[in-house]
Amino acid sequence: MSTRGTAAPADQLTVRRSNLSLVLQHLRDAGPRSRARIASDTGLNKATVSSLVAELIDRGLVSEGEVQRIGSVGRPGLSVELAGGTVVGVGVEVNADFVDVTALDLTHSVVLSARTPADMRALGEERALGLLVRCLREAFDALAGRGCTVVGTTVAVPALVDSRAGRVAVAPNLGWTDTPLADRLAVALAGHPVLGGAEPAVTVDNDANLGAIAEHALGVGRDADDLVYLAGEVGVGCGMVVGGTLVRGATGFTGEIGHAPLNPRLERCGCGRVGCWETQVGLGVLLQGCAHGPDDPLLDPAGDIDSRLGLVRDRAAADDERTCETLERVGIALGLGASVLVNIVNPRVLVLGGYFGLLAPLLLPYVVETLTERVVAPDGGGVEVRASELGFAAASRGGAVVALQTVFADPTRVGSPAV
Amino acid sequence: MSTRGTAAPADQLTVRRSNLSLVLQHLRDAGPRSRARIASDTGLNKATVSSLVAELIDRGLVSEGEVQRIGSVGRPGLSVELAGGTVVGVGVEVNADFVDVTALDLTHSVVLSARTPADMRALGEERALGLLVRCLREAFDALAGRGCTVVGTTVAVPALVDSRAGRVAVAPNLGWTDTPLADRLAVALAGHPVLGGAEPAVTVDNDANLGAIAEHALGVGRDADDLVYLAGEVGVGCGMVVGGTLVRGATGFTGEIGHAPLNPRLERCGCGRVGCWETQVGLGVLLQGCAHGPDDPLLDPAGDIDSRLGLVRDRAAADDERTCETLERVGIALGLGASVLVNIVNPRVLVLGGYFGLLAPLLLPYVVETLTERVVAPDGGGVEVRASELGFAAASRGGAVVALQTVFADPTRVGSPAV
Repeated sequence: MSTRGTAAPADQLTVRRSNLSLVLQHLRDAGPRSRARIASDTGLNKATVSSLVAELIDRGLVSEGEVQRIGSVGRPGLSVELAGGTVVGVGVEVNADFVDVTALDLTHSVVLSARTPADMRALGEERALGLLVRCLREAFDALAGRGCTVVGTTVAVPALVDSRAGRVAVAPNLGWTDTPLADRLAVALAGHPVLGGAEPAVTVDNDANLGAIAEHALGVGRDADDLVYLAGEVGVGCGMVVGGTLVRGATGFTGEIGHAPLNPRLERCGCGRVGCWETQVGLGVLLQGCAHGPDDPLLDPAGDIDSRLGLVRDRAAADDERTCETLERVGIALGLGASVLVNIVNPRVLVLGGYFGLLAPLLLPYVVETLTERVVAPDGGGVEVRASELGFAAASRGGAVVALQTVFADPTRVGSPAV
Repeated sequence: MSTRGTAAPADQLTVRRSNLSLVLQHLRDAGPRSRARIASDTGLNKATVSSLVAELIDRGLVSEGEVQRIGSVGRPGLSVELAGGTVVGVGVEVNADFVDVTALDLTHSVVLSARTPADMRALGEERALGLLVRCLREAFDALAGRGCTVVGTTVAVPALVDSRAGRVAVAPNLGWTDTPLADRLAVALAGHPVLGGAEPAVTVDNDANLGAIAEHALGVGRDADDLVYLAGEVGVGCGMVVGGTLVRGATGFTGEIGHAPLNPRLERCGCGRVGCWETQVGLGVLLQGCAHGPDDPLLDPAGDIDSRLGLVRDRAAADDERTCETLERVGIALGLGASVLVNIVNPRVLVLGGYFGLLAPLLLPYVVETLTERVVAPDGGGVEVRASELGFAAASRGGAVVALQTVFADPTRVGSPAV
C-alpha cells in the first residue's frame, strides 16, 4: 500500500557498483561460468561483463578458472569463478558452553574453525568478553598468516539482540544485560593487520537468526525459501525465513518460542517465568535427565559438548533406561513446540539445529509422530523435518555468511581496481 | 539469494497499464489531488498524467473533484479522486453463526452490508452453500439496483483454505471438507447483470488472513506494517502481516494458533485433539462459561451474535459472578496465547478481532497483564494491543479489499477507454 516516490537518478558509479554486485552474486548462486554466459544470463552486454570481471579480478574477488569449450566449434571460453581462500567473513558464536569462531571465504568454504569450551555464564560478563576478544585475535592472527583479508565479523549471541545498534538487550543464559557488544569488540580489534587498514566492521545478531541464515545459504535448507530453524541449546529459540528473507519483526525480537507456556508442570525457567517450553527441551534438561547422579561427566561444563552428546548416543545405543526415557520425553515435547511453529508459520522445511540436530536419529521418531498428530493442515502442511548438518557451528557459519554479504552487496569495499 | 534473469521487454500496453495502476494506487494511498501534483509525486510527466487520468475517468474509476488553488497565483487545479459508489468489490464471510456480505467501493467506503444469522454447521454443507448463494444473489441484485459493477468476490471461511485452487481443505467448525467453493460459487453466480458481462471472479481465503488484510488496509492497523490479527470466533486463528505483506507460508496454511497445546486440562477440541488453545478462548467456551443453564439466551444459535455479546457486557456491568469469572479466565488464557504469537512474530500491533474486539474493554486488562509477564523482549517488544473496530465484519471487509485489488493492479479490467 506504499506509494512510489521519485527515485534519485542513479549516477554512473552507482550503476557500476550495482553491476559488479550483480556479477559477483551470480557467480555465487549459479557457479563458475564464462564471461559470455554471464552476459547472456544477466542481460548485460559482453564488453561490460569483461570490464566488470576485470575489476573483480583486480579486487581479488574473482579468479580465472578452467577453459570451457562451448559446443564443439569456436574459441574456447575461459571460466571465471569466485576467488577462494583470500577474502573472508568471520562468524563467532558466543554459546553458554563455548566460543566458536568460523571464517568462510566467498565460496562459503571453511577457511578456519576453532572452538573453545568455557562456562560463559560462570565467567561473568567482563571475563567472558575478554575470552571472546582473545578467541577473535587468535583467529585474526591465523587468518593474517594465511594472507586473508577479513571483510567483517558477525557475532551470534543466545539473546535478545538489537542488531541495528549492535547491543545485546538480554542474554538470560549468559547473564548479560544491555551490553554494547559491537562497539566494545570494534575497539578491542581495531588496527589488526588482517582488516587491511579498514575499520573493524562488527555486527551482532541472535544465534537462531544466524543459524537460519546459514541453513538457507549453505545448509540443509538451501532449497527452501520458507524455513524455520530451531536451535536446541541451553536455551531454545528459532529463526524464520519467509519468502527467502529472515523475519526480524517490528523491533528485531522474533523467534522466542522457548518461553511459550507449554509445560503444564509449571517448572521454573532460567528467565524467571514458569512453564516455559525450554524447561522441557533445553540442553541442560536433556543432560540432567540422562545423567546418573551429579558427578556424571554429562554434567561437566568443562567437557566438550560434542563429546558429551556422543556419550548420550552411546548410552541410548546400550538401551540405558534413563537415557531412553529422557529422549522420549524430550522428543515428544520437542514435537509439541515444533507443531506450534509449523501451525503458525507453515514452513516448507523445519531444521532441527544445535543438539536437536546432533541427536536427531534418536529424537526424530517422536518429533514426527507428534507433529503428525498436532499439525492441523493436511499432510502436516507439507513440512519436511530435517536435521542440521552444521552441528553447533550453524550460528557462527551464519555470522560469516552475513559478514560476507557486505562484499556481495558492494564489491568495491574490497581492494582497488588496477589503474 | 536469487539471480536476476533477463526481463522480457515491456511493451507499450504493459507500460500504460502499469502507469494507470500507479496513478490509481497513488490516489488511494495519498488522497485526492491535482494532475500536476500527481505528476510531481510519481515522477511521470504532466502530459502522461493527463492522458492516464482521462482514461481512468472514461473507465469510471476516477472522478473530478473540487477546485484546488495551489499557492495564491496561477491557474487553479482541478482535483481528481477515486470514483465512489460505482465500482465495488464484494467480501463474504461464512461464519459458524452467520453469513456477512459487504461491498466496498474504490474508496473503501461501505456500499452494502448485510448479515444473515444461521447455524451454518447444523445446516450441513449443501444447504449452507445454498444460503451463501442466496445471500450473494440478494446482494448482487441490490448492487445492480444502485448501478454498481462488481469486479470480484472474495469469500472468507474459518478453514484451512487452498486459496490458489479456491478450495476449502478443512473447515472443522462448519463441517466442510475439500469443498471446491470458488468453482461452485462461480457457476451459481454466472450471468448476473451486476458483473457487467464478465465471468464472476470468485476467490476464497482464510477468515483471519482477510481480517488481517482489512485491519492493515482500513482498520486500526493502518499505520503498522508488522501486524498480527487475532480472530476470536467459534474457532481462533490469526493472520500475520510482515513488512506490509500477508504471510501465506509454504502451502497457504499459516495462522493456526488455535490448536497450540496450551490448555493443561487437556479438554477435547472441535478438531478432535486435546488441549487446544481454542478450548480455553473460543466463542463457544466464553458463552458456555457465562451462561446460567442450557436455556440461557446466550446459547441460542439463532440469536444475533452482537446482541448475545451485548448481554455479556450487560451482565459484566451488573457484576454477574459467572460472567466476571469467565471473562477473567478467558482474558488470561487469551494473553497467554497472544504472548506466544508476540514472542515468535514480534509485531508492532496486535489487533484483537471478532468477539475479542467486541469485549475488549472487559478482556484487555487481563490480556495486557499476561502479555507483560510473558513477553520476553524488553517493553513487550514494543507491541501495542488494539481492539478491532470492525467487529465480526473484518473478514468480509478484507474480502472486499482483496476483490478490489485486482482493479488497482490492472485498471483496464473495468470499462473501456472512450475512442
